[in-house]
Amino acid sequence: MSGGAAGGGSGDAAGGRPATLDVNVDMGESFGRWRLGDDAAIMPFVSSASIACGFHAGDPRNMRETAGHAVAHGVTIGAHVGLPDLIGFGRRKMAVSAEEVRDDTLYQLGALQAVARAAGGRVAYVKPHGALYVLCAADPALAGGVAEAIAAVDPTLPLLLLADADRDVSAAVSAHGVRLVREAFADLEYEPGGALVIERVKQAWDPARVAERAVRVAREGTIDARDGSSLQVDAATVCIHGDGPNAVEIARAVRARLDAEGIAVAPFAG
Amino acid sequence: MSGGAAGGGSGDAAGGRPATLDVNVDMGESFGRWRLGDDAAIMPFVSSASIACGFHAGDPRNMRETAGHAVAHGVTIGAHVGLPDLIGFGRRKMAVSAEEVRDDTLYQLGALQAVARAAGGRVAYVKPHGALYVLCAADPALAGGVAEAIAAVDPTLPLLLLADADRDVSAAVSAHGVRLVREAFADLEYEPGGALVIERVKQAWDPARVAERAVRVAREGTIDARDGSSLQVDAATVCIHGDGPNAVEIARAVRARLDAEGIAVAPFAG
Amino acid sequence: MSGGAAGGGSGDAAGGRPATLDVNVDMGESFGRWRLGDDAAIMPFVSSASIACGFHAGDPRNMRETAGHAVAHGVTIGAHVGLPDLIGFGRRKMAVSAEEVRDDTLYQLGALQAVARAAGGRVAYVKPHGALYVLCAADPALAGGVAEAIAAVDPTLPLLLLADADRDVSAAVSAHGVRLVREAFADLEYEPGGALVIERVKQAWDPARVAERAVRVAREGTIDARDGSSLQVDAATVCIHGDGPNAVEIARAVRARLDAEGIAVAPFAG
Amino acid sequence: MSGGAAGGGSGDAAGGRPATLDVNVDMGESFGRWRLGDDAAIMPFVSSASIACGFHAGDPRNMRETAGHAVAHGVTIGAHVGLPDLIGFGRRKMAVSAEEVRDDTLYQLGALQAVARAAGGRVAYVKPHGALYVLCAADPALAGGVAEAIAAVDPTLPLLLLADADRDVSAAVSAHGVRLVREAFADLEYEPGGALVIERVKQAWDPARVAERAVRVAREGTIDARDGSSLQVDAATVCIHGDGPNAVEIARAVRARLDAEGIAVAPFAG
Repeated sequence: MSGGAAGGGSGDAAGGRPATLDVNVDMGESFGRWRLGDDAAIMPFVSSASIACGFHAGDPRNMRETAGHAVAHGVTIGAHVGLPDLIGFGRRKMAVSAEEVRDDTLYQLGALQAVARAAGGRVAYVKPHGALYVLCAADPALAGGVAEAIAAVDPTLPLLLLADADRDVSAAVSAHGVRLVREAFADLEYEPGGALVIERVKQAWDPARVAERAVRVAREGTIDARDGSSLQVDAATVCIHGDGPNAVEIARAVRARLDAEGIAVAPFAG
Repeated sequence: MSGGAAGGGSGDAAGGRPATLDVNVDMGESFGRWRLGDDAAIMPFVSSASIACGFHAGDPRNMRETAGHAVAHGVTIGAHVGLPDLIGFGRRKMAVSAEEVRDDTLYQLGALQAVARAAGGRVAYVKPHGALYVLCAADPALAGGVAEAIAAVDPTLPLLLLADADRDVSAAVSAHGVRLVREAFADLEYEPGGALVIERVKQAWDPARVAERAVRVAREGTIDARDGSSLQVDAATVCIHGDGPNAVEIARAVRARLDAEGIAVAPFAG
Repeated sequence: MSGGAAGGGSGDAAGGRPATLDVNVDMGESFGRWRLGDDAAIMPFVSSASIACGFHAGDPRNMRETAGHAVAHGVTIGAHVGLPDLIGFGRRKMAVSAEEVRDDTLYQLGALQAVARAAGGRVAYVKPHGALYVLCAADPALAGGVAEAIAAVDPTLPLLLLADADRDVSAAVSAHGVRLVREAFADLEYEPGGALVIERVKQAWDPARVAERAVRVAREGTIDARDGSSLQVDAATVCIHGDGPNAVEIARAVRARLDAEGIAVAPFAG
Repeated sequence: MSGGAAGGGSGDAAGGRPATLDVNVDMGESFGRWRLGDDAAIMPFVSSASIACGFHAGDPRNMRETAGHAVAHGVTIGAHVGLPDLIGFGRRKMAVSAEEVRDDTLYQLGALQAVARAAGGRVAYVKPHGALYVLCAADPALAGGVAEAIAAVDPTLPLLLLADADRDVSAAVSAHGVRLVREAFADLEYEPGGALVIERVKQAWDPARVAERAVRVAREGTIDARDGSSLQVDAATVCIHGDGPNAVEIARAVRARLDAEGIAVAPFAG
């Protein structure tokens, strides 16, 4: 959690300049016969699509379809790399090594690069998913594993991680010449200390509350914790989950509210 | 099977110019805890390594290690794309559609591209594995699916297929602007009509016989069928399997024999 | 397709005795995070639940939950064994051997037996799924593979197959001392010759039409083909798919209609 | 670690009665095309075979073949249940819940029961594998999850766990009416406090040393730790790994030594 001034988005409430915010959504989470999320319906409301790469969700066909939707809507594509745990949807922590994380990231990132290219797009950032996200936000060695993979493939791709990731993680990422970009979660609870409360199966959230939180990230660079306290976040993007039961409503509400507030929704990368 | 003159390798026995031949071996077929093939031991003898991409064999770590061995030995890397059938090692035919083949090829090719890049190399060709190979050699729609994937990612990558693939397959590949390169199998039996006899589990072959067959592909552009008849093949490369029980001995014998014959072993691609 | 008199269900329209019919539904087809079908909602309307066993769909937790719903509603449990093709939902034909089918059936059947026991129930029949169903209905060796597995575990469990399975398949099944039970599909089209038209992704059907077809199976032992002709079926049970978009509505309509017609819905096994 | 007298095997060195010891080996760890361990060669030397059940290793065909070898040699069969992590060979800890462990155990145990029955045998005990073993030895909830599965299927099956599992784990197991049987590892190092040193890939051990340790478990109920200190173990069985590079030599040496010492090798269960 940044102790300094809010750098949320390129928001600059004080200066009168219109704020901008990236809205990224987990997508491509269908698998074979199983549909999860309505990527086509959400796409018009967001600026970045974090597409699952086959380890925790996604398969070549679904990845391609979602990449196609993203390209059609001018939405930036990110590689949502996960742990190799399909049954657990990548939301169970595993004792993976930094080398395993590096190699698994290489594989998934490369796979989506080819799929995105075939859809007329390109991968513009990398974001770990679920338990890998939480592990990387806390363990410099694992964050470094992801960064090493990015550096080997395309060091210009930023790595998205939690706004409250501690300094050591930042150093492990920048050591590979990779830029760390902070994000905030508009539809997850935060502990007062800044840690995320991960839901094994995403629950419905009140769209108005999610939208209000997104606005505050953009305007003030803050988000509320479980106990009502306010956390300073240094986030260039807010995440909305694509697998929640009312994900489309949430995305629509967030976008409508940001539009109404004059906050431009624009990709942070790409 | 080409009815015309032998165009095997760049062999030109009659003309006095030294013949060259590519020797490609299936590699990267270990999976997790399971070792299959001794890629490091085989690498010195070959010019091209067809590396499994995770669908029928291979995993990110083993792919990276094999790619590293290839780079260290100056061996050209190919993407050995397979059917999604780990238990069957990709050697059971499946009723896949052209679209599925295209998407699965995109995914696997991209994954290996990133892994190869991290190992300091690059993917220089694509070769289907096992049942997918046999299906593509017989079905223009499926061969076209692979070619479409190649075209989307990098149309300069040639596609390896059986020398006796019929004309319609060639047309389906070239329609995507992809070059089809013919190969012959030094350690598999051919039916008199030119069809391959696929072994579910690779059996040991006499190294001297495999070497002799490789020489004949280079010198004469022919290979013997089961019944002793001679088949004309238009092959720029001969394949040796990496998962046979005596694969290292075979690779060593083939290379020694080709060296002794003055046939240069050199990659056809890359 | 039986050439003799209709033996559908225990229906005996002519004799005045109330007809009975089993209604079986494919269930337990959720997988990990992904939900497919609403097993709890369908359960009240059916007499048999064919539960996926993890190869084409299903996982231990979802299998247990569905088995629990079946037990709670007094619904008979069957093992819905499939090909090892999760991404293809078991609906792509694979070149599996009779030995592979036998071993895969053993594994899946045993797994569901333990899960069902923990839920307070037991497995009472076996039914192949998707492409394996179609393969077994046409290939005596593969049907024999399933039957051999059943015989090894519990020869009293009947094997469900298509009503038009030819004689050779029957013989291959009975050779293992296993009883073959015929079923009809109320929500799939039939070719005039009696072959099923498999849908890769189940489409919506008109509930009234499905109900009408179920009644005819029970009353007359017939079902209509694509061209409007009538096929004689010797079916003790009708199948409704659980993964169709309006599966609950269909199940409710079929049950209501059968109740209205005075046709008892009762399990054929167990 | 038992603080009381050694109850290892049924050894009774002081009393003059011939000691007996069970020797159990991890088996059935091949997967599809990949061979691991030489089950047929090891079988003559052991009394119990812990057979992988498909989650960390093993597939229906390999499970059946190994069960067949066990039956042919009169060796008792156990279900070696693992975490759903094929690439990691079940040796990476995962944050699984007690309910997941219960359901995964049900599934795997049932699958092997059917396979064993087809091979003419039966499952006589349950033993967690790798990371699941270590997790269960330390977490009463997870050990209870395995025990709950056993109780639901066949409460007479004992559960094998590490000799130094603490009291709370014992209580969690016995709460389900399941008997906990202690084992010692003849080919793994122990920390001075009694914890096992798990190897991600099994290393070669000196057969004579392993044999000596097995004798001491039988005669004295003790095993040496890394620092040379002696640990009291209350073990009815010693485990030898089947995936070590010299597993057959080790099994042969252990058996020869136990025979020479007059210690009967006999199953603890079955």
